[in-house]
Amino acid sequence: MNKRRHVMKELYIVDLKERVNLDTKIVLLGWVKAKRKHGKVIFLDICDSTGCIQAVVERAKVIPSDFDVATKVTPESSIKVEGVLRKKIIRTGLAREISVDRIEIIGLATIQIFPQPRGEIDIFEPKIQEQLMNNRHFYLRNEKLMAILRFRHIAMGIIHQWFRNNGFIEITAPVLTPTPLYEDRSAIPLRVHDQDIFLTQCVGFYLESAVHAFEKVYNIGPSFRGEESKSKRHLMEYWHLKAEVAFGNLDDIMYIVESLIKDVTQRCCEEAGELLKTLGSILCDAGKDTPYDRISYTEAVSLLQRNGFEFEFGKSLGTEEEAFLSNHFQKPFWVIGIPRSVEPFPYVINPNDPRVTKTADLIATEGFGEILGVAEKIHDLAMLDERMKEKGKLGNPQYEWLRDLRQYGCVPHIGFGMGIERFIRWLLRIPHVRDTIPFFRTFGRKVAP
Amino acid sequence: MNKRRHVMKELYIVDLKERVNLDTKIVLLGWVKAKRKHGKVIFLDICDSTGCIQAVVERAKVIPSDFDVATKVTPESSIKVEGVLRKKIIRTGLAREISVDRIEIIGLATIQIFPQPRGEIDIFEPKIQEQLMNNRHFYLRNEKLMAILRFRHIAMGIIHQWFRNNGFIEITAPVLTPTPLYEDRSAIPLRVHDQDIFLTQCVGFYLESAVHAFEKVYNIGPSFRGEESKSKRHLMEYWHLKAEVAFGNLDDIMYIVESLIKDVTQRCCEEAGELLKTLGSILCDAGKDTPYDRISYTEAVSLLQRNGFEFEFGKSLGTEEEAFLSNHFQKPFWVIGIPRSVEPFPYVINPNDPRVTKTADLIATEGFGEILGVAEKIHDLAMLDERMKEKGKLGNPQYEWLRDLRQYGCVPHIGFGMGIERFIRWLLRIPHVRDTIPFFRTFGRKVAP
Repeated sequence: MNKRRHVMKELYIVDLKERVNLDTKIVLLGWVKAKRKHGKVIFLDICDSTGCIQAVVERAKVIPSDFDVATKVTPESSIKVEGVLRKKIIRTGLAREISVDRIEIIGLATIQIFPQPRGEIDIFEPKIQEQLMNNRHFYLRNEKLMAILRFRHIAMGIIHQWFRNNGFIEITAPVLTPTPLYEDRSAIPLRVHDQDIFLTQCVGFYLESAVHAFEKVYNIGPSFRGEESKSKRHLMEYWHLKAEVAFGNLDDIMYIVESLIKDVTQRCCEEAGELLKTLGSILCDAGKDTPYDRISYTEAVSLLQRNGFEFEFGKSLGTEEEAFLSNHFQKPFWVIGIPRSVEPFPYVINPNDPRVTKTADLIATEGFGEILGVAEKIHDLAMLDERMKEKGKLGNPQYEWLRDLRQYGCVPHIGFGMGIERFIRWLLRIPHVRDTIPFFRTFGRKVAP
Repeated sequence: MNKRRHVMKELYIVDLKERVNLDTKIVLLGWVKAKRKHGKVIFLDICDSTGCIQAVVERAKVIPSDFDVATKVTPESSIKVEGVLRKKIIRTGLAREISVDRIEIIGLATIQIFPQPRGEIDIFEPKIQEQLMNNRHFYLRNEKLMAILRFRHIAMGIIHQWFRNNGFIEITAPVLTPTPLYEDRSAIPLRVHDQDIFLTQCVGFYLESAVHAFEKVYNIGPSFRGEESKSKRHLMEYWHLKAEVAFGNLDDIMYIVESLIKDVTQRCCEEAGELLKTLGSILCDAGKDTPYDRISYTEAVSLLQRNGFEFEFGKSLGTEEEAFLSNHFQKPFWVIGIPRSVEPFPYVINPNDPRVTKTADLIATEGFGEILGVAEKIHDLAMLDERMKEKGKLGNPQYEWLRDLRQYGCVPHIGFGMGIERFIRWLLRIPHVRDTIPFFRTFGRKVAP
């Protein structure tokens, strides 16, 4: 987009700080972060999406009604100031400020919100969580939350780019589906034009259809889980990255995922440097060192049992088990061969140990838990039927098209799935996934706003 | 991703055609498109996601069981062939083929689908539409449908890139919402954990919250409409591009949209040249010539009435009206000032003519109809209340957060929304929007697969 000569907002604070010459007349549109009055001078900290700058309103320099405006303006009000860009001496050297000629209120903040969204607050402080969750529409203006969401924006761009550079086609699979991956009760049901359907839990079925055309496909879109889980790792609506590749095995998909996480982590470090300073957070770079460590599920169970865990073969690893295993590895690690009892039906059974599937979960460092799973998907009709029967799906006409696919040139194919929010939570070390998405949906909380 | 030494599939057909030396031994994994038997020689057309190549199986050159395999293999079966890359003389010059040494079936196609998805079929032929719609999971393998979906993939990448290059932040707003934009009856309702909510019709409310933090935001995600419309321009689930900008007016948003459409159209032409040949379609380049023409809604009504249309002021333009107006313009055109009676509540009322809003619809060339709408959004609480009352939303607690925003430093902001499928339909001149998305959802059809 070329610069237009006349748009309503021509200058951003970053321009005033870096590009515009001193002593230039400028017009700035922004929000009042804070106000200090010292007799005949009012200092306003004005912010926009690119930063903050001080504006000085001197009674001697402006018309009386404008000084009244500056007196009346409340924090978070939106304003327009005209003035001259001046240099200002601060402890650490020189800065810039606006010497105000005219001031005008655009939208007066007539209500007050505590703590003030643009104020210096610790958005992870437990005491203020309820307030922040109930008023997300205001707290998006918080500098730290903005930094997290900008990081998300950057990371999503890098992920899209990675798949596109590596020959994957984006599928945009549907949200409305008659065929949930897991049990019906863990899906969110709805009725549309006299048909009972579900919100997608996973677009894997659509990708395995597309993979027989494009061979390499990916999808980034919302996914829904109806489980009653209040953990820090669960959202009812989350952004789900899925990818599938034709003609591949478990080693291939583990290699693809390691390449993805390594490359994305590295590029996020490069592109998000400034944001990470704002967050006071160090990007988790443990993902950069590939290949990751590996342990089989079976070995993991023995290790847990030898160390006093009452853990039975066939169960999913819980938070405590994952945390214990984490201590054995300096980097993310794979748990390979998840039992057929806990995996859904589309994944290949290991012929050498039919208790387990050809799948692996990647467990993050520092107790952040499982961030993604990979699998070899069944291409043989007999095995599919066996597994569908086991999971109570055989004979359900909504799943018949998956049986169709196995009778029409099906090939060995592999896939993986990762929640974008869990990934970002891990990289930025954020307490709860809800703060990695602009408007969260969690179990046990009204959907609002 | 670096090349690994050992992955299941190392060579694609495009490599065999462009990169691999003649007389090299190769292994290819792909699908049988067609088979011809001439006595002791079997010709197989093998395809993968990158193209097709002929493979020749000669009885004299392979072991008997492999000749049996070639005899038995059915169209659409997936196979592995080993052989040598040879040159072949064709009418137009030289081509390449595989002289087969070994052949193996990976997945035998045991069912038959007519018309054959990889065959030369006209996917827009009315007679086969039911079959194609019922079996989308197979017909994704069709060359033309693949070309359309690859075009979609390219266009979406270019759109994301355009917003990112122009300083917009991607928001990923929620699908689950208590606050639909239009009437409740045109939204898809569902009940989640004892709360009645809706699938999003439009993420505008979330963007106008975010715009007070980031100033420029965009969103590309699924959107849902419950209207009982069976037109060629409607999907029940579609991908919705939305963007909002703080501190802007109607001219600004029209300018932004013109820049977007012009740039995206141009880049699509550059990047999708080969695909367009496959489609036999000329990319609609009418969008490249900006600024677009303009007519006010009021002028349009007069023009229609003078030309015999029984069209009343205050109604939406229908397909016939849009088609008639199209004849007056050589490029897309704006209809400016849509009546308040048909627009939802968030848009500014024109102070000079309170019958209309500060909005505009962009109508595509060639009768493809409206592809997007732009608006100035209300930032004044009194005007919002007036409009919410008019549309029966005032007093509904689910909309209270939108009133909050108008009391906390709200600024003039602008927005636009476009259905990705309508845009692609127009560019590629496709009969029905359903063919611009891998798995469509339309009213009056069961959600399947």
